[in-house]
Amino acid sequence: MNPDLVIRNARVLTCDPSRFGLGMVDRGAIAIRAGVIEWVGPDADRPGATRVVDAGGRLVTPGLVDCHTHAIFAGDRANEFAMRAAGKTYLEIAAAGGGIGATLGPTRAATDETLVALLLARLDLALAAGTTTMEIKSGYDLTVAGELRLLRCIAAAGRRPAPRIVPTLLAHLVPPERKADRSAYIIELRDQLIPQVATDKLAASVDIYCDEGAFTLAETRSILGAAKIAGLPVRGHVGQFTDLGAAELLADLAALSADHLEQITDRGIEQLASAGVVAVMLPGACVQLRLPVPPVEKLRAAGVLMAIASDLNPGSSYCEQLPLQMWLATTHYGMTVEEAWLGVTRHAAKALGLPTGGTLQADVQADLIVWACDDPATVPYRYGAASSLIESVYVGGVRCGMAVS
Amino acid sequence: MNPDLVIRNARVLTCDPSRFGLGMVDRGAIAIRAGVIEWVGPDADRPGATRVVDAGGRLVTPGLVDCHTHAIFAGDRANEFAMRAAGKTYLEIAAAGGGIGATLGPTRAATDETLVALLLARLDLALAAGTTTMEIKSGYDLTVAGELRLLRCIAAAGRRPAPRIVPTLLAHLVPPERKADRSAYIIELRDQLIPQVATDKLAASVDIYCDEGAFTLAETRSILGAAKIAGLPVRGHVGQFTDLGAAELLADLAALSADHLEQITDRGIEQLASAGVVAVMLPGACVQLRLPVPPVEKLRAAGVLMAIASDLNPGSSYCEQLPLQMWLATTHYGMTVEEAWLGVTRHAAKALGLPTGGTLQADVQADLIVWACDDPATVPYRYGAASSLIESVYVGGVRCGMAVS
Repeated sequence: MNPDLVIRNARVLTCDPSRFGLGMVDRGAIAIRAGVIEWVGPDADRPGATRVVDAGGRLVTPGLVDCHTHAIFAGDRANEFAMRAAGKTYLEIAAAGGGIGATLGPTRAATDETLVALLLARLDLALAAGTTTMEIKSGYDLTVAGELRLLRCIAAAGRRPAPRIVPTLLAHLVPPERKADRSAYIIELRDQLIPQVATDKLAASVDIYCDEGAFTLAETRSILGAAKIAGLPVRGHVGQFTDLGAAELLADLAALSADHLEQITDRGIEQLASAGVVAVMLPGACVQLRLPVPPVEKLRAAGVLMAIASDLNPGSSYCEQLPLQMWLATTHYGMTVEEAWLGVTRHAAKALGLPTGGTLQADVQADLIVWACDDPATVPYRYGAASSLIESVYVGGVRCGMAVS
Repeated sequence: MNPDLVIRNARVLTCDPSRFGLGMVDRGAIAIRAGVIEWVGPDADRPGATRVVDAGGRLVTPGLVDCHTHAIFAGDRANEFAMRAAGKTYLEIAAAGGGIGATLGPTRAATDETLVALLLARLDLALAAGTTTMEIKSGYDLTVAGELRLLRCIAAAGRRPAPRIVPTLLAHLVPPERKADRSAYIIELRDQLIPQVATDKLAASVDIYCDEGAFTLAETRSILGAAKIAGLPVRGHVGQFTDLGAAELLADLAALSADHLEQITDRGIEQLASAGVVAVMLPGACVQLRLPVPPVEKLRAAGVLMAIASDLNPGSSYCEQLPLQMWLATTHYGMTVEEAWLGVTRHAAKALGLPTGGTLQADVQADLIVWACDDPATVPYRYGAASSLIESVYVGGVRCGMAVS
């Protein structure tokens, strides 16, 4: 039986780990059946198909995987952005009502309908910039019932075919109203929220923000321990401002990923490498907060796999555009173009526990992008105009309508 | 007689220097007749009009002014971008055929039609991101006849109503084939090219690249002197890599602007301030080349006016998006949101010798943007998605059709 669709005459960037480097098949073709890739190979060997699309020699890549976002929230913090640009300190901004607290109020007050509509608008922008799989964290309610509600809203948004959604429960921080009974709050997370999320299958993993002002290393160990007991993989926001030793802990726990890493010791790097934990680079937030650049050369030398994500959130990176993050990664972070591509495809999928995600190879979902260019370097190089570089996006072998200007 | 058009119920960011700060008129309106602003004031006082547009309380700003681009060229240098990301040095890239030389060949080989078509595609992207006036430099041919041709192609593109074009003759560097008779080349520039450009009114100013590997300070003095004699204002690329003292020279020559300024002395800053030379910040190129940040605090303290531009060019910043440059300016450069706005409106217009440009006030061309938001900080804050933040763009009082996805 013929495949449903063959995309031919393409420069296929497979990101297939069994091929060299980015796994480019220069004059290539892809055969798709029932939403799944059946075959990738030389154009000359392509099978017949019900429908054939000629890519005109253009670049075809896996759909992009954004493996770290906080895309569900209400309100914005443009005012806080202006204060920071005017040189106000973190404490001054907090005193003026800024910080995560400024997102908690509007998010808690918003209806489910509003939250889903806001999220869908962001998903449209992400899809128009090539994101076909997006991780979305809870974390802007911080009550047990409210975090469950956020995860249910994420699930509702995920009923649309594209982009695909990977939900994460995030232990973001202790909310202001629970500062007096911090340990009781943590027990609620451990004994109520995490088991409920696991039972209801509302998240694919549990994430935690371990840093000065968020959770301590001991609390992180306790909360992620509960996640492991509940059968959920874990990951963490680590060393964005201060290294509390969480990289080592995440390595011990065989976490999916350690994210941020502006601050990390050589020992932490080694342990991430041995444990196969993906380092998620978030260059937009790093630039916006004027933080030091993570030790990319050391991570590379140690063999740590690096992913790149948008960190889409209202505080430090209000951006849906992965290609722009690739530009920041290849310029400000000093990553190579190959690392940038793997960072938003195969390595990002690994950070989400999707072992064959972010690749174009047989038996993988047919999520792919036909670009308007032929060189992979063009995508980060022509920064800021991703949508104009995209010819079409397919999710599960179906071409997506682009609703976005 | 009534105005043709009134835009009412708007938060009007006038950038009018006679008003405080950004000159916000909170519940404002704008009256337009024959493409020119007739009146700006409180919505309650608005005149009647043939046509009234209700902005729904949204932000209305001057159209953006991109005061530094190299938007006319053929070919691209994605390959060079990849080499730099892989850690190749400037010399290694040059040895592999990179650098400006890699743009000279394709540009010289391209037909007028191709050059204009490539330029128009870039103008479409810029307009979709809010640019209503764009400066465009020659500089990728470097022969007398070829530079004249580039300026004629720019003029051809400028026959479209939007964006408005301001052409600049750029003495970019001595082309490889003239290295042996460098002084003869400079005499050609002085005695043939510049007078011809002035006679044919092909450029509004003369720019020069004064840096290690480009023109020396003495050559710069000689070439800009010829421009002054020909009646053309001058400006310069200054201190991107090395401070050769060109800021002081530009101050002496009462230049329109001094651009880049990663390297500048305190004395240079003082002189720019006293001479009223605009400092043009190019943060995209700075990030891409991993250069140090210019001394923004010192420029601010000295009272130097700062503009922000895209530096759109194939080597160090292939980007048409001014709002993204505003994000880089407010984060990486530490500029305020107010400085970012003035930098892409009033101060950018001043850098182009357009004294009332980049403002919304009576007797100024009605070039303006109706944004999809109400807070000026939102424009840099929601970085990377400028087109989705724009409701409509007017040039000369006429709403532009947006051809770009």
